[in-house]
Amino acid sequence: MSFAARHIGPSGAEQRRMLETVGYGSLDELMDAAIPEVIRWHEGLDLPPAATEEEALAELRALASRNTVAVSMIGLGYHGTHTPAVIRRNVLENPAWYTAYTPYQPEISQGRLEALLNFQTMVADLTGLTTANASMLDEATAAAEAMTLARRASKSTSMVYVVDADALPQTLSVIRTRAEPLGITVRVVDLASEPLPGEFFGLHLQYPGASGVVRDHAALVEAAHGVGALVTVAADLLALTLLRPPGEIGADIAAGTTQRFGVPMGFGGPHAGYLVVRAGLERMLPGRLVGVSRDADGAPAYRLALQTREQHIRREKATSNICTAQVLLAVMAGMYAVYHGPAGLRAIASRVADRAATLAAGLRAGGVPLVSDDFFDTVTAVVPGRAAEVVEAAAARGVNLRLASPDAVGIACDETTTPAHLAEVWAAFGVAPVEPVTASVPLARASEYLTHPVFHSHHSETAMLRYLRRLADKDYALDRGMIPLGSCTMKLNATTEMEPVTWPEFADVHPFAPASQAAGYRELIGQLEGWLAEVTGYDAVSVQPNAGSQGELAGLLAIRAYHLSRGDTGRDVCLIPSSAHGTNAASAVMAGMRVVVVACDPDGNVDLVDLDRQIAAHRDTLAAVMVTYPSTHGVYETGIASLCAKVHDAGGQVYVDGANLNALVGYAKPGRFGADVSHLNLHKTFCIPHGGGGPGVGPVAVRAHLAPYLPSAGGGEAAGAVSAAPFGSAGILPIPWAYLRMMGADGLTRATGAAVLAANYVAARLREHYPVLYAGNKGLVAHECILDLRPLTKATGVSVDDVAKRLIDYGFHAPTMSFPVAGTLMVEPTESEDLAELDRFCDAMVAIRAEIDAAATWGADNPLANAPHTASMVTADEWTHPYPRSVAAYPDGVSREGKYWPPVRRIDGAFGDRNLVCACPPVDSYA
Amino acid sequence: MSFAARHIGPSGAEQRRMLETVGYGSLDELMDAAIPEVIRWHEGLDLPPAATEEEALAELRALASRNTVAVSMIGLGYHGTHTPAVIRRNVLENPAWYTAYTPYQPEISQGRLEALLNFQTMVADLTGLTTANASMLDEATAAAEAMTLARRASKSTSMVYVVDADALPQTLSVIRTRAEPLGITVRVVDLASEPLPGEFFGLHLQYPGASGVVRDHAALVEAAHGVGALVTVAADLLALTLLRPPGEIGADIAAGTTQRFGVPMGFGGPHAGYLVVRAGLERMLPGRLVGVSRDADGAPAYRLALQTREQHIRREKATSNICTAQVLLAVMAGMYAVYHGPAGLRAIASRVADRAATLAAGLRAGGVPLVSDDFFDTVTAVVPGRAAEVVEAAAARGVNLRLASPDAVGIACDETTTPAHLAEVWAAFGVAPVEPVTASVPLARASEYLTHPVFHSHHSETAMLRYLRRLADKDYALDRGMIPLGSCTMKLNATTEMEPVTWPEFADVHPFAPASQAAGYRELIGQLEGWLAEVTGYDAVSVQPNAGSQGELAGLLAIRAYHLSRGDTGRDVCLIPSSAHGTNAASAVMAGMRVVVVACDPDGNVDLVDLDRQIAAHRDTLAAVMVTYPSTHGVYETGIASLCAKVHDAGGQVYVDGANLNALVGYAKPGRFGADVSHLNLHKTFCIPHGGGGPGVGPVAVRAHLAPYLPSAGGGEAAGAVSAAPFGSAGILPIPWAYLRMMGADGLTRATGAAVLAANYVAARLREHYPVLYAGNKGLVAHECILDLRPLTKATGVSVDDVAKRLIDYGFHAPTMSFPVAGTLMVEPTESEDLAELDRFCDAMVAIRAEIDAAATWGADNPLANAPHTASMVTADEWTHPYPRSVAAYPDGVSREGKYWPPVRRIDGAFGDRNLVCACPPVDSYA
Repeated sequence: MSFAARHIGPSGAEQRRMLETVGYGSLDELMDAAIPEVIRWHEGLDLPPAATEEEALAELRALASRNTVAVSMIGLGYHGTHTPAVIRRNVLENPAWYTAYTPYQPEISQGRLEALLNFQTMVADLTGLTTANASMLDEATAAAEAMTLARRASKSTSMVYVVDADALPQTLSVIRTRAEPLGITVRVVDLASEPLPGEFFGLHLQYPGASGVVRDHAALVEAAHGVGALVTVAADLLALTLLRPPGEIGADIAAGTTQRFGVPMGFGGPHAGYLVVRAGLERMLPGRLVGVSRDADGAPAYRLALQTREQHIRREKATSNICTAQVLLAVMAGMYAVYHGPAGLRAIASRVADRAATLAAGLRAGGVPLVSDDFFDTVTAVVPGRAAEVVEAAAARGVNLRLASPDAVGIACDETTTPAHLAEVWAAFGVAPVEPVTASVPLARASEYLTHPVFHSHHSETAMLRYLRRLADKDYALDRGMIPLGSCTMKLNATTEMEPVTWPEFADVHPFAPASQAAGYRELIGQLEGWLAEVTGYDAVSVQPNAGSQGELAGLLAIRAYHLSRGDTGRDVCLIPSSAHGTNAASAVMAGMRVVVVACDPDGNVDLVDLDRQIAAHRDTLAAVMVTYPSTHGVYETGIASLCAKVHDAGGQVYVDGANLNALVGYAKPGRFGADVSHLNLHKTFCIPHGGGGPGVGPVAVRAHLAPYLPSAGGGEAAGAVSAAPFGSAGILPIPWAYLRMMGADGLTRATGAAVLAANYVAARLREHYPVLYAGNKGLVAHECILDLRPLTKATGVSVDDVAKRLIDYGFHAPTMSFPVAGTLMVEPTESEDLAELDRFCDAMVAIRAEIDAAATWGADNPLANAPHTASMVTADEWTHPYPRSVAAYPDGVSREGKYWPPVRRIDGAFGDRNLVCACPPVDSYA
Repeated sequence: MSFAARHIGPSGAEQRRMLETVGYGSLDELMDAAIPEVIRWHEGLDLPPAATEEEALAELRALASRNTVAVSMIGLGYHGTHTPAVIRRNVLENPAWYTAYTPYQPEISQGRLEALLNFQTMVADLTGLTTANASMLDEATAAAEAMTLARRASKSTSMVYVVDADALPQTLSVIRTRAEPLGITVRVVDLASEPLPGEFFGLHLQYPGASGVVRDHAALVEAAHGVGALVTVAADLLALTLLRPPGEIGADIAAGTTQRFGVPMGFGGPHAGYLVVRAGLERMLPGRLVGVSRDADGAPAYRLALQTREQHIRREKATSNICTAQVLLAVMAGMYAVYHGPAGLRAIASRVADRAATLAAGLRAGGVPLVSDDFFDTVTAVVPGRAAEVVEAAAARGVNLRLASPDAVGIACDETTTPAHLAEVWAAFGVAPVEPVTASVPLARASEYLTHPVFHSHHSETAMLRYLRRLADKDYALDRGMIPLGSCTMKLNATTEMEPVTWPEFADVHPFAPASQAAGYRELIGQLEGWLAEVTGYDAVSVQPNAGSQGELAGLLAIRAYHLSRGDTGRDVCLIPSSAHGTNAASAVMAGMRVVVVACDPDGNVDLVDLDRQIAAHRDTLAAVMVTYPSTHGVYETGIASLCAKVHDAGGQVYVDGANLNALVGYAKPGRFGADVSHLNLHKTFCIPHGGGGPGVGPVAVRAHLAPYLPSAGGGEAAGAVSAAPFGSAGILPIPWAYLRMMGADGLTRATGAAVLAANYVAARLREHYPVLYAGNKGLVAHECILDLRPLTKATGVSVDDVAKRLIDYGFHAPTMSFPVAGTLMVEPTESEDLAELDRFCDAMVAIRAEIDAAATWGADNPLANAPHTASMVTADEWTHPYPRSVAAYPDGVSREGKYWPPVRRIDGAFGDRNLVCACPPVDSYA
């Protein structure tokens, strides 16, 4: 059987039955009717013929074998690390973890929410600060977010941001990219020798520095506070197990990466960045934040806190566009701390420090001076004029060092460094080995950390395995059933796509390794970019953005740069339809644009009359229009070509958000129907798993005229880097590569058809029970449909929340709630769900409709209002509800086999927001 | 943290608290008191220093890289196959499947029982016979079991077993080994040209033959039946998707392997063999058989059927010693059929047949004659005098062929064969390529198979993933909690030990590949055999036996051969204590010995007075004594050295069953305290996971004088092969290798101490609630303890079954029930359970004791009698029991977090035995 037949849920016979229900004789007929001819692409896709799963794996093995796994002592925020095998197998390779969605339905996400709370506690404890969020995309973007947070929080009116010269170069690069459109001036100062400027709103320090030097920053913090500035310390968490943490010198913010806590380097990512703040700033944190609240029984329960800060709600008032974070990797890093515990982490750090001290002793004994004697794991050696030669000699011995300057070589030790590695380094420098010495780190830490019992209870592999299973069992992921989330495309993440991710040849490559060591990666990335360009009809693609949000920003920055390059300096208006995802507006603001909203007509389409009006009103300042296609309403708008033409005529650029590309692949190409730029969500259409809220990858694809402004892989100086690593989250690019390689042109096209058919099937089956809000040609939807609950809510009081939570009792993850229209559910079944599962969902929705009608007879104490029902509740000795227990637990048609029990009842989010707790609560709170 | 610290559950501090409870100041003190000085080994173990997990993986990668993954077209029952990635990751690499125990507690094993029922249905359907068991160790041992089954079932008095000359050579070898001690004469006849003899009780046919030839065996079957003989057809299941099955020509038995259904070759194993019989023979089947029965609610439920046939019950009356089978691999093979369905399997088989037909066409066109034109996948080419040269030429092109004779070359096509492979083969023969042809197989099959819906419902990867998860979720395995099974040593199966098993360099090597291609394997096996010899104090080890039962047989055959070699032909008595595992007696019978039982004294030890008596009574015929040490009573018997001396003095050999080696490693060596031979259970002491009932590996270890009689790796002609493959289940030997490599001498010794401490801790905590039946020195037990429930049962009527099932409600797998003493529970906590889990278990047992005392007040309708309680039961609208629901579901101290719900209530085994159903029942039976 072809891979496409494994990927696409409904068989041919099933598709024929679905077509009958929808009222079409064939998939071709349906698609011809659904997709406007004006955008239709009839030429097929020029892709290699579909490979079998085994052929694809063989090709990937060949590509992998072209990478070289060397000993990387380059440092710069990327370090060798031992992923505990129990975590690799049971988190990174476990579909229960990696196929989970973002925990927007917290009642069925308690496992990963607990894991994220561990992560937040770990970050807060190690940095000595108060509130950490549930991860950032990488250290560089975290540092950029810290900058804008500082700008918001600072009382200073200065627009100057000071960055110490010993910051990581890629961090500086991203900070610059992000500062420029916002009018922030980045001033790099060598604070080891130069004074702080008089006025500035924020200060970025690296700890230890890129050079490895550990400095006491207390005085700088005090000085910064003196002028009303906030201080961010970009700190290495492993170092903080030994060194005085930022919180103890008064830092306001800390940012960094948790990669070396067991997450493979993966040629740059994905890894979980972190961001943590002192008390008083927690409500200004960007990104997702897990907090403790309580459920309907008053029991402690976790959920995302302070969600009203999120960009999809605040739109152009948002201060960050970050949505997807790096949940899967944050879970791993948090579990690394759980497995090792504070004593274990300290032991690892001490061993690393001892290695560095030994290395330094050998260099000094051999007459090689060091830039400093105060270091944790990284030593910078001074070899005037000889640096390149030393680096080359080391590479010849299988060890990568850092060419810090023509006269200096950086050497970073890590958990994987052995005495044999030190011997190779000494040999490269031409010095003799010395006996091991014990490190005496500067600024030794006195305070405790990771005192919570969770960091002391799972140190045997057996205990760890069971903890991971227990948490996974609390959650609902794609391995249990359908997650019909509109706009999120929760489709199959095939095992064959996932397996290469943990092969050492892909996992253990440093992002700044010599190009020759990453030949396989570069070929894979080149092919992937080419295939993505072919699929989308664009001319150039960059995979650097490591999330859709970063892809959006990169695309808008390209538009901005394009206008500026033509001397068109006044173009800063971005038209965005009212139906757009809020992140679009947030990204536009971050790109220095003004958002102007374009209305939608009663059918949910962009109101082309209002568009004309807005174009006219902003003709000279029009930078771009940013639309999603098919629209967020799940409709193929027929006016898209006209929209593109109008904007182009007015000198604007057209940005098509690629979130809904799963409805287009093989049938239409945005780059050919009028768009200039799109970002793609590889974790939607191209099968990277959602990981419970990340990783995502958001490549940006452009027409030729925008190609010069893509974020560059060389570090991005030309066009500005948007992510820390040259190729972003390269480590997971084998996934979309394998998907494209195994589907081929025909498979991809059939998948699109099956996805559109499934959405129309669901719409057809549910239309008589719930109005379907918008539709395009002939009443057809695209790949998702909106079920309008507002009339029912008005008539019965049963809310969209009630239905979503009741679906849990039926064994489903709820569809997208109240987006893009409040009071509705948006259903995207995707092509991967077979007819049995689609029918199970439709049956559940029909049964719930009957319950809604019956709710009046039950009154307020009804199964919808009380949903979800936990096992504890339904097995209680007393049962006082007017409906029987069987209705609570096993409503109509729900199989008793494989019943999923949510671990908590409905969660009171507001309570938690009022009583913010974002670290592991004391154990007695569960009593 | 060292691996040993990850493997051993209790931390140092926890061990100190446990020692306090037991009443000792240190582990050394405890062990000095527990282990008789007479067996104590004080010299330590000469093993390489413990490697870290990463170092061990690196060494294994180096070993793996010394294997060559060639294209293997050797055939002979081992074929290239594509393991579906979704099955590899979610079964073979999933602890929920691989850490499960044999399904003796069926209520918590419904998932794997269903998977095995799929396997049995698949075998029965494809062979056209009625009842298949739940797997055999390999094709050769299955064929040997078929021979003895035929002997039991045949009305003929002949002792002649006829084997067709086209049988697999390794099958013939094992049949010979097994026939000889039983007095069966094996007669090999080339039935293509020679007639059947006049009298014989059984006939073994290969279908297709080893040469690939497909013959119509109908006339032979009729002729055999005419003389009262039974016919076994060793059939290839993939071929049977196209060829007329054995059942349709009247065969009585079919046997074979399911390896090519997605199970990697693994240099010979493990794979699931199969055995299936016609109606009327089902109650004579050896091995484990899954059947459908019903639970206390009358709902269909699965369990092992006809258990009274099992060797551990029938002892010396047993007709087979097979216990552990190959469950994990049977699950994989069954799931392969579920995933492909009948149409998919047929398509695969057709493609294979087309390849073979094309290959043949090319050879014929090139003037190379074939031995036959009737074949499925294997072609034997006639190249007089040139065979070795052709085989060598092919090897040089990366393809392994079979040197069938100096004049003939066998070439087997399989699922992985590509046109490129055919081209290499043609080139090796020096013939030109031809265009692909379509096969027309002889004896085409007309009947349907795999018509049950399960083979038609899970063809998309999404559906398959969820099916696997749903089944896994029904079961209780080590990843949920403790499985305190006495005599089974359910300890950690560390991920690092497991990972290499699925590396291609270990997974994809043919057992008959040229030795140079398996250099890594041979080195690994050599090291492992050496380390096992060092640990046990023996001089030589063979890893060929692929289960403990085969190890027992091999050890006893070595003793038999030793006596015979000395002209000591009358020695055939095997003394076995009454406390022994029944398999010991069964193995002795299979080795041609007479079992004489030695009594135990009231303390549970071997009665040395009775021993003297039996030795005196059998002085001239004494072959061996077979004892388990520590005894199956969990006691270090002090008389062991004296026992060994007495038996030696009488000219007997001492066999020490290694089942309880986990109580000895580092502290005592059987080979040094008097034993001559042991088998080891690598799936007990050496961490191969139980896989839900296999794979096991049972190496045999001997003193030097028995070394010449070990089963030989060269195919075993000298000493007789006991398993099909030269090195048995080589594919999983990286597991014990890694365990030994990472623990080192000190870690192994500490593990033994921790295991003994844990058992004594449990005994100390529970002694006041349940009498501990036997103990040795100072009231100490070894690594397990027996809780005597008989007085309680007598007083209250609560049975050992009630307690075992009630433990499920408390979240535990029951200890071993009624072995070695009826009415007791035997608890072996192992070293891997931390104190929290040990206490959770003890707390549950204490709480259950209180429930037993309260049972009288509840009467017959009490929570013990009704256990286990399902969610369906406890959430029922009506509750009529005298105890509340909360007591049913969440008894005292049971956390509501992570509650495990059994999917069925207590199962009525006898009902299923009376109404035997051993294939997937129709779906409407669940209504």
